Amino acid sequence: VKALDLISRYRTVRQRSVSLCAPLTIEDHAIQSMPDASPAKWHLAHTTWFYETFVLAELGQAPHDERWSYAFNSYYDAVGPRVERARRGLMSRPSLEEVLAYRAAVDERVARALDHALAPALQALVELGLHHEQQHQELLLTDIKHALGTQPLRPAYRDDLVRDGAAAIAPLAWVELDEEVVEIGAGDRGFAFDNERPRHRVIVPAFAIATRPIANAEVLAFIGDGGYDEPRHWLAEGFATARRDGWRAPLYWEQRDGVWCAYDLAGVREIDPAETACHLSYFEADAIARWAGARLPTEAEWERVASGLRARAGHWADDDRLHPRAATTTGLAQVFGDVWEWTASAYVPYPGFRPLPGALGEYNGKFMSGQMVLRGGSCLTPRGHVRASYRNFFAPTARWQMTGVRLATDRGSPPW
Amino acid sequence: VKALDLISRYRTVRQRSVSLCAPLTIEDHAIQSMPDASPAKWHLAHTTWFYETFVLAELGQAPHDERWSYAFNSYYDAVGPRVERARRGLMSRPSLEEVLAYRAAVDERVARALDHALAPALQALVELGLHHEQQHQELLLTDIKHALGTQPLRPAYRDDLVRDGAAAIAPLAWVELDEEVVEIGAGDRGFAFDNERPRHRVIVPAFAIATRPIANAEVLAFIGDGGYDEPRHWLAEGFATARRDGWRAPLYWEQRDGVWCAYDLAGVREIDPAETACHLSYFEADAIARWAGARLPTEAEWERVASGLRARAGHWADDDRLHPRAATTTGLAQVFGDVWEWTASAYVPYPGFRPLPGALGEYNGKFMSGQMVLRGGSCLTPRGHVRASYRNFFAPTARWQMTGVRLATDRGSPPW
Amino acid sequence: VKALDLISRYRTVRQRSVSLCAPLTIEDHAIQSMPDASPAKWHLAHTTWFYETFVLAELGQAPHDERWSYAFNSYYDAVGPRVERARRGLMSRPSLEEVLAYRAAVDERVARALDHALAPALQALVELGLHHEQQHQELLLTDIKHALGTQPLRPAYRDDLVRDGAAAIAPLAWVELDEEVVEIGAGDRGFAFDNERPRHRVIVPAFAIATRPIANAEVLAFIGDGGYDEPRHWLAEGFATARRDGWRAPLYWEQRDGVWCAYDLAGVREIDPAETACHLSYFEADAIARWAGARLPTEAEWERVASGLRARAGHWADDDRLHPRAATTTGLAQVFGDVWEWTASAYVPYPGFRPLPGALGEYNGKFMSGQMVLRGGSCLTPRGHVRASYRNFFAPTARWQMTGVRLATDRGSPPW
Amino acid sequence: VKALDLISRYRTVRQRSVSLCAPLTIEDHAIQSMPDASPAKWHLAHTTWFYETFVLAELGQAPHDERWSYAFNSYYDAVGPRVERARRGLMSRPSLEEVLAYRAAVDERVARALDHALAPALQALVELGLHHEQQHQELLLTDIKHALGTQPLRPAYRDDLVRDGAAAIAPLAWVELDEEVVEIGAGDRGFAFDNERPRHRVIVPAFAIATRPIANAEVLAFIGDGGYDEPRHWLAEGFATARRDGWRAPLYWEQRDGVWCAYDLAGVREIDPAETACHLSYFEADAIARWAGARLPTEAEWERVASGLRARAGHWADDDRLHPRAATTTGLAQVFGDVWEWTASAYVPYPGFRPLPGALGEYNGKFMSGQMVLRGGSCLTPRGHVRASYRNFFAPTARWQMTGVRLATDRGSPPW
Repeated sequence: VKALDLISRYRTVRQRSVSLCAPLTIEDHAIQSMPDASPAKWHLAHTTWFYETFVLAELGQAPHDERWSYAFNSYYDAVGPRVERARRGLMSRPSLEEVLAYRAAVDERVARALDHALAPALQALVELGLHHEQQHQELLLTDIKHALGTQPLRPAYRDDLVRDGAAAIAPLAWVELDEEVVEIGAGDRGFAFDNERPRHRVIVPAFAIATRPIANAEVLAFIGDGGYDEPRHWLAEGFATARRDGWRAPLYWEQRDGVWCAYDLAGVREIDPAETACHLSYFEADAIARWAGARLPTEAEWERVASGLRARAGHWADDDRLHPRAATTTGLAQVFGDVWEWTASAYVPYPGFRPLPGALGEYNGKFMSGQMVLRGGSCLTPRGHVRASYRNFFAPTARWQMTGVRLATDRGSPPW
Repeated sequence: VKALDLISRYRTVRQRSVSLCAPLTIEDHAIQSMPDASPAKWHLAHTTWFYETFVLAELGQAPHDERWSYAFNSYYDAVGPRVERARRGLMSRPSLEEVLAYRAAVDERVARALDHALAPALQALVELGLHHEQQHQELLLTDIKHALGTQPLRPAYRDDLVRDGAAAIAPLAWVELDEEVVEIGAGDRGFAFDNERPRHRVIVPAFAIATRPIANAEVLAFIGDGGYDEPRHWLAEGFATARRDGWRAPLYWEQRDGVWCAYDLAGVREIDPAETACHLSYFEADAIARWAGARLPTEAEWERVASGLRARAGHWADDDRLHPRAATTTGLAQVFGDVWEWTASAYVPYPGFRPLPGALGEYNGKFMSGQMVLRGGSCLTPRGHVRASYRNFFAPTARWQMTGVRLATDRGSPPW
Repeated sequence: VKALDLISRYRTVRQRSVSLCAPLTIEDHAIQSMPDASPAKWHLAHTTWFYETFVLAELGQAPHDERWSYAFNSYYDAVGPRVERARRGLMSRPSLEEVLAYRAAVDERVARALDHALAPALQALVELGLHHEQQHQELLLTDIKHALGTQPLRPAYRDDLVRDGAAAIAPLAWVELDEEVVEIGAGDRGFAFDNERPRHRVIVPAFAIATRPIANAEVLAFIGDGGYDEPRHWLAEGFATARRDGWRAPLYWEQRDGVWCAYDLAGVREIDPAETACHLSYFEADAIARWAGARLPTEAEWERVASGLRARAGHWADDDRLHPRAATTTGLAQVFGDVWEWTASAYVPYPGFRPLPGALGEYNGKFMSGQMVLRGGSCLTPRGHVRASYRNFFAPTARWQMTGVRLATDRGSPPW
Repeated sequence: VKALDLISRYRTVRQRSVSLCAPLTIEDHAIQSMPDASPAKWHLAHTTWFYETFVLAELGQAPHDERWSYAFNSYYDAVGPRVERARRGLMSRPSLEEVLAYRAAVDERVARALDHALAPALQALVELGLHHEQQHQELLLTDIKHALGTQPLRPAYRDDLVRDGAAAIAPLAWVELDEEVVEIGAGDRGFAFDNERPRHRVIVPAFAIATRPIANAEVLAFIGDGGYDEPRHWLAEGFATARRDGWRAPLYWEQRDGVWCAYDLAGVREIDPAETACHLSYFEADAIARWAGARLPTEAEWERVASGLRARAGHWADDDRLHPRAATTTGLAQVFGDVWEWTASAYVPYPGFRPLPGALGEYNGKFMSGQMVLRGGSCLTPRGHVRASYRNFFAPTARWQMTGVRLATDRGSPPW
């Protein structure tokens, strides 16, 4: 039964990657708008390469095309050399058509393998491949958003995405918690990435956390208050980055005839103050928190709050919106699924961390420097992909992910 | 009659741009492998934009899509702002299909205008547009060569290009000329770019010039003699560039199992020593000349030699080869049409130079700094596009053009 | 009594800064060999500026020269604009002589102020100024080491520094500790920087820690084992940095006739395998630990071990050695005072962290991103300046500080 | 007699280098404010190294200190490796004192050699060394001007320099010349650099040349007319450079309370409109000429005008002014000695150019790319150092030299 279930999930996940690309032109699939992003075609191929390399090769199967191992390796040194990251958008070959044929061929082989009583260790690798592919589905959306949203014509990804009308923003309130020893991290059962383990106890001092992420209204207030020009709100490196890169607002914001507008996957719209703010870097998140007299939560604080909730299918991954909702709900809200929430925690290993064996040990561990942890998943995260223990991580300068801000404070009294 | 002739030439030139792209996939059209190069799709659109901006707009016609004026302006400040050069490869929109429709729409309009007794000044602009488009046809080929030849799979542009078998290289001999006052530059009649005028007299001292461009055999000797490691052969800036960029051979050369091979538009082949050498920068050309005890010719020397010859249709632009021939002919040979020959002359205005009026004054004049003059056309230059007075120009570091070396010396005796 | 004591300590600390510069030529004082380092003259002036800005200005005293406020502000945005960091070495004026006169003038004024019953808040700022100056004394030594050790003649800072003869290296053994809830951080009494507070409890799981820092012998083994070429040992960003910057050994190591030598403040000597290894970046420290099957300790682990020891005057700051000792002692050793030990902890605020009020809030807090914590002080740290709770911090790429590696492991069994 | 004369000139030239440094502090000697500039100390040492390497070594004499050969080689590859140019300011050792002792020791040896009937070839190298040192005297002044004029305190080099009061600017008039075949370049007799030879004939078409260089009044008019913002006046690379580097006025100009001031070797003063304009790059010179409806002269045009004049000691090198005069003289004026005048000629070899033999062949020839020729000498050029045939050369972006603009036009009628 479980194998059947795995086949079924395999097909569903694999299909969704292709479906996500349906609105794209062939050229849209090919472009890489910055070194951090990858072309959609590359995502389609790399996720396929993963099964070929870590599952089919174990079964002794030759690769579909051995030259593609070089082309579609992302960062696994143990597997061999690879195309320089910033040059992924310069591979016009293989073509999209060839990549789709590659997907079909590998899918055929994986399905056949799953049919034939695949060893549990390899089943686990297929499982890992599905989670890997779901991560790439979110990246695919953020990368295509960057590719479309930074080119002159600002084309929409889709014209039929659902957008709310104006709504009343919920007041920002605070949930207060007392000091407690809590367990965080993933337990031994169920799927989790290696970086979520081992589960361990930490002391979490008393703190308060905001009921909702900040909304555009608060970002507008920060801008209006000269927040981008006032070094005292910022980490030194953050302010230097903001200066160097000319940050005056979140990514995708632009002024048109004096009005703040933003590009999202449905095109360019006027800013809705009630909408949950997104595309903020850690440095901006931290500066806004400081300006507000608050701070960002630690990942332990965040997980303590989230672990009591069900990381259930929110609105996200229904693929009909692909944008955060308005912040209209009172009470603790939007913990999962609108925006990845920056935490104050640097991405370092948990006590007793053990990377996966072999080349897959490079999956997470080797990135444990210079990045910050984000929690909660976003409106672009596939349904079922997020957990309370899930640790996402990006550089503090990253703005093209669906990232937002939930405030915390260690004083009992709210800062606003 | 002349208008009919212009329509006919218009159709021929315009058609060839599209034909040159026939072997490309849609993705091939889109990539920009370095800031100096442009995507094929961009070339197709920009050459069209030229007629729209400089001819149709004069007739009061609105642009096909006004946003494209921004997207496809190359460098005309007087016409308005434009997409940053290095970001041309990031425009997935308009799509190739839209660009081809744009071409068709503009062609229709230009043809109709030509049908209706277009004013001579505008006919001259259509004429200029054809020469402009022919320049872009050569760039299109060098740019697509760079795009394909620097990606991992090294795909051929065409499989059916003609390549010679091994041939005996002709010995390098010298033509000696006495001092003379010569006229160089284009006269008043016939088409020429503004930078070829005015025709004027210069004193050309006695010199000798090689009967043919250097071949791969000579480049291999330079390499074998440690030429890339010996600063005494090089201009200081050239040696620093070679070091910084790791030049060990001409562009597209690579060693495979200890054998020198090179990518050309037909794929990767072993080096043929008899073949005319190409893809050398000015700095390499100058170093090879110095190593050989010779120098590069000045543009006046070159033109003096060439003006007695017919810049007739050579083998080039038959589009069945797109690569230089072997250097097999004795006597003065290959002056036109195999490789652009670097001269020792910096690209500066001729005495009495007058740029074209208006925005077209930016066509040539504003690039008269930091570049060297090349002469003679190459195997990629469209048939009929080159003249003895034609001044091509590139930065001394440029290697992706079809550039080679003809030696000269001011001693009567040959250096080799 | 306390004021008297403060005057006396003020004079002692201030005098030592000048004494440290005694072996330097006037030109040595002036150079800045990289943006991260500062000229000795700048250190002498900036430490003086600190008292002038944060103490004397509070007393209403005009600055010695108001233009110097701009010149010698390090990074306090709240105090005003400042010279770009990388240009500190380009200020030939004021001259060393003027800077020494500036020091004398400010010392005179501070001493007079201390004589006249300075308010406790201002006494605390003088106290802070002394700790600040001690930090700069260590930086002064590392910066001058870099300036001298990277110039062609490799001049010694002093010829009379004590260096040990060959000694037998102590075997690397392990101290094992059980899980415990420990308190870390500085309590309310006594001087501590804001970043050491508040003291708070953390759960420290069972771990083992090495009895001594690694020695050159272990670094040589890492090099001999191809450690710098094996990406599997490294964090991804670390390996990329090592490649880009050509790291093949710790900073200051060079091969002379096939023998590893290193520059230290006494000149260039052959590597002594028994000597405590230094000038390793975090990335190298982490890679060496991983190669050894171990890891770096967290700052909580380190502090737990160190807090039982007396951070007493070790050999360091006797200023007769200024180099780590050989690792010859068995049992837990060298916790304080040979090399700053990289920890696995990112430099983030403690729970409940409150920066100092006003401009001094910029002292530490705004650097809490992208850096790693180091503990224990070094042979260059002034006597009395270090504490078990002391948190030093540098970027993971920094190598010019006196930084080394103590291994830890969460397995009970030692990895070697 | 000639040897005596050479000794006497040797002593005079050598002494002047030291005298020029007299107003400097020790630290002033040491700084290098940009890669193109060198520290004064380095100039003092390098000019000495020249005699040691090219004269004394020929006599079999060992170097004063063999390590300095590495430190003070400027760019002679044939002589061996050298300190990277941008790191000259990081050598605090040898100290100024040691360098002065080095000068004295070499002077002693050269004088003794000259006393003992030095071979004519070596006498010629001493002669070359003197011209070389005079070139460095001008560089020393421009480099120290840059070092002092770009640091925060803007210290004057000397307080006692002569500065004129306000004067009436002379109107800009034109000298018209008919076409002629002229000889340019240095003949066989007398000292000249290799790049001035051979003398050869060129056809110079009819042209007009301005009676004087442009003055600050004209630069102010260009600024006021938005010249720095109007791409149509500029070469493409020039406008891009101006944008990238934020050029809004000549180097050293700054606005103080809305008034244009400039730093010169006497300190910061308000701009005097009548003063000859200086510190303009080629790109600015060219843009100003185009804005004025004129152009820059070619070097042949310039030399034709200048060769009829006596390149006599002007006011310059009296070392009491070190700044261009006001443009107050009517009739052809200031051809020699106020500002180096940018020409429209790229720095390429003359027909038949032969570099000096051996390592000295690197003196000029290897820089013949990417630079423009300047003519006439400046107020900083040593007395007797300039000739009508003298070809100075700098990159078109260079602004820290004493460079100005004389207009020309090929129309008979003046553009203004």
